[in-house]
Amino acid sequence: VIKAQILSVGDEIVSGQIVDSNAAYLSQRLGELGIPVVGHAAVRDDQGEIEAALRSSAGPADVVIVTGGLGPTHDDLTREAIAAVAGVDLVLDPPSLENIRTIFAAHGIEMPPSNEKQATYPVGGEVLPNATGTAAGVRALIDGADVFVLPGVPREMMAMFEATVVPRLKATDRVIVTRSLRCFGMSESLIAERLGAVVDLHGEPRVGILASGGVITVKFTTAAATQEAALEQLDPLCAKARSAIGAVVFGEDGDTLEQVVVRQLKERGYTIALAESCTGGLIAHCLTEVAGVSEVFREGLVTYSNEAKTRLLGVRAELFESVGAVSEEVARRMAEGVRSSAGADVGVGVTGIAGPSGGSAEKPVGTVHVAVAVAGRTEHRKLSLRGVRSLVKNRAAKHALNMVRLVLAGE
Amino acid sequence: VIKAQILSVGDEIVSGQIVDSNAAYLSQRLGELGIPVVGHAAVRDDQGEIEAALRSSAGPADVVIVTGGLGPTHDDLTREAIAAVAGVDLVLDPPSLENIRTIFAAHGIEMPPSNEKQATYPVGGEVLPNATGTAAGVRALIDGADVFVLPGVPREMMAMFEATVVPRLKATDRVIVTRSLRCFGMSESLIAERLGAVVDLHGEPRVGILASGGVITVKFTTAAATQEAALEQLDPLCAKARSAIGAVVFGEDGDTLEQVVVRQLKERGYTIALAESCTGGLIAHCLTEVAGVSEVFREGLVTYSNEAKTRLLGVRAELFESVGAVSEEVARRMAEGVRSSAGADVGVGVTGIAGPSGGSAEKPVGTVHVAVAVAGRTEHRKLSLRGVRSLVKNRAAKHALNMVRLVLAGE
Repeated sequence: VIKAQILSVGDEIVSGQIVDSNAAYLSQRLGELGIPVVGHAAVRDDQGEIEAALRSSAGPADVVIVTGGLGPTHDDLTREAIAAVAGVDLVLDPPSLENIRTIFAAHGIEMPPSNEKQATYPVGGEVLPNATGTAAGVRALIDGADVFVLPGVPREMMAMFEATVVPRLKATDRVIVTRSLRCFGMSESLIAERLGAVVDLHGEPRVGILASGGVITVKFTTAAATQEAALEQLDPLCAKARSAIGAVVFGEDGDTLEQVVVRQLKERGYTIALAESCTGGLIAHCLTEVAGVSEVFREGLVTYSNEAKTRLLGVRAELFESVGAVSEEVARRMAEGVRSSAGADVGVGVTGIAGPSGGSAEKPVGTVHVAVAVAGRTEHRKLSLRGVRSLVKNRAAKHALNMVRLVLAGE
Repeated sequence: VIKAQILSVGDEIVSGQIVDSNAAYLSQRLGELGIPVVGHAAVRDDQGEIEAALRSSAGPADVVIVTGGLGPTHDDLTREAIAAVAGVDLVLDPPSLENIRTIFAAHGIEMPPSNEKQATYPVGGEVLPNATGTAAGVRALIDGADVFVLPGVPREMMAMFEATVVPRLKATDRVIVTRSLRCFGMSESLIAERLGAVVDLHGEPRVGILASGGVITVKFTTAAATQEAALEQLDPLCAKARSAIGAVVFGEDGDTLEQVVVRQLKERGYTIALAESCTGGLIAHCLTEVAGVSEVFREGLVTYSNEAKTRLLGVRAELFESVGAVSEEVARRMAEGVRSSAGADVGVGVTGIAGPSGGSAEKPVGTVHVAVAVAGRTEHRKLSLRGVRSLVKNRAAKHALNMVRLVLAGE
């Protein structure tokens, strides 16, 4: 079996300023490609330390993926370290230099001379073109290991890994395949309990349960000779798990709540409009992350002031006195108001207290009212959320999207 | 200077199932305590691999913090590896065993025999009591390095680190202090060039330059006997760097663009209103992440459809025919329209093509017009952004916030 090692370069990682998510991404992807990762390492922006780490990573591994240190500044030293360990010089790659000049030109700036080093590679190695940024990647052979160097910026790293590394990796005779169920609205432990009643949590295929941002992902992984053989094991398992967990399963694999909602709206030929207060535009932001949303999304009104709730949504001003802006009545009126003024099929209204201030004994921070209006009826739900401001916003937005999903599914 | 190394043990980390946030936490805390971390490593639940990693981590470091592999099951092997590397036996610690029995009793369960090994430690070492879980920690001396082993569960790890490791670390006579400048709107390489003209990029204090989400952070780090002595070195350096880099410096340390804009608005007693098309609510979401924004934020209109731009913002419908929705004229009219209808001091209008579809030769994906209206004038800027949909949204939102900052600063 071919084995891989991941090496991350950067003071910001070793000093703990940022969490190294690149190593996890690469390990997952290599695992899916049938190449197990046997270790991670991270070193500072120090040429000697990078060289030592390259030598000890290359020893036990057939493939080494290095991220970081490809920038244009004095503390970007991975290229130099690779050349030193391989015992060769760095040479210029004219097409990469042209690409960098083009990027600067698009911004109307002349390329500073320091960027030239981003277009160099070690003699005997290979340039990995960067489709999304200035730093070209590098491939070199060290101690018999195939070493790929990618930028540290996750977005550029992922794009370069998929476009240039994956096609260059030696084919293996096994594939590792994963299927996931995505759930919202039930605790991790309750999902584990329901799951444990129908599948062996400690057997093969491996079962993982992971909570992130309020979404619980149940992940089934197996290795097999072919994709088809793996899916023959995974598909019945997924089906069993799905019926045990129930309606909180909103999607599969990489699905997000907003993608599912946009899909439902398109299927029904419906449009949607939003009236947000405490979520502050986050629901609109989530929906508009989905490509092609303009077919179904008419408008979103972030009515932070009461005056805006009255002027734009027709919420009667006396409601703010009688029941308060954070109330079932106002949420319902916001959903119905934006549905009618935008001429949409679905209207969503959210009002609440994101904190840290604004809470009271009767309405503590985290009190959120969500309403979803469709033809003939308006559904309402009161949430009591815990946590800091950004967490309350995030969970309220997810609950609102999930309510839209359930209302549309129930029609 | 005392140096530290972090070693994380666990299949779930090396396979990428979870991101290793423990290493970042420990690095940050050790840095604050004056003990720089020089490297991270992660290995699988394999006794031989853990032993090899312990030896190579202990070599260059004075302190090694190991997390994970202290559980009760067959694949928790860190204790065994520590004992093997130190060449000693594992012995039982009766108080730790009592603690584990108590935890099980509290759940009304008898302790399974497998948990007994969680109360063992290597002869000549020390037990680190666990106040929040069953796994006791371990301290041992390996190759002259002080090695601490903590549980992998972040909550337990943090509690044990603070309660038992911090008091046992040799007091250092130095603190490590960091000051940062946050910049937007200039390339990393140009910032480095300007910086290099006034400060020594390779000397002490250390200078780091980091790009993340379009924001460039310039970071100065030094070690000194006291916080005051460190700041005496850092403050003049920051001031010099600030004047060399210029107006693209928008803040310091943890500042975000939205925090700076909210601060400016409060200082001036101004209010703001937003009209967003391609950014889809992201600017409103960013602003409403700032606590207390309701004092200055009136409303945000996400006018995705042309009809909404006309009805809510007064954009004349013939403009969509003559110059198109993505144009300077429409951006200006959006900014002025929302400023006037919301009765705000500052109005922002953003219209563009986030992609992946909707682009043309004349107006490719990434074409974005931003306008900022204040009393008496409206500033406009056309952007040509690169990248996928979410990136175009993100950069457009940051440019819009930065334009507001510059307009307010210039008043």
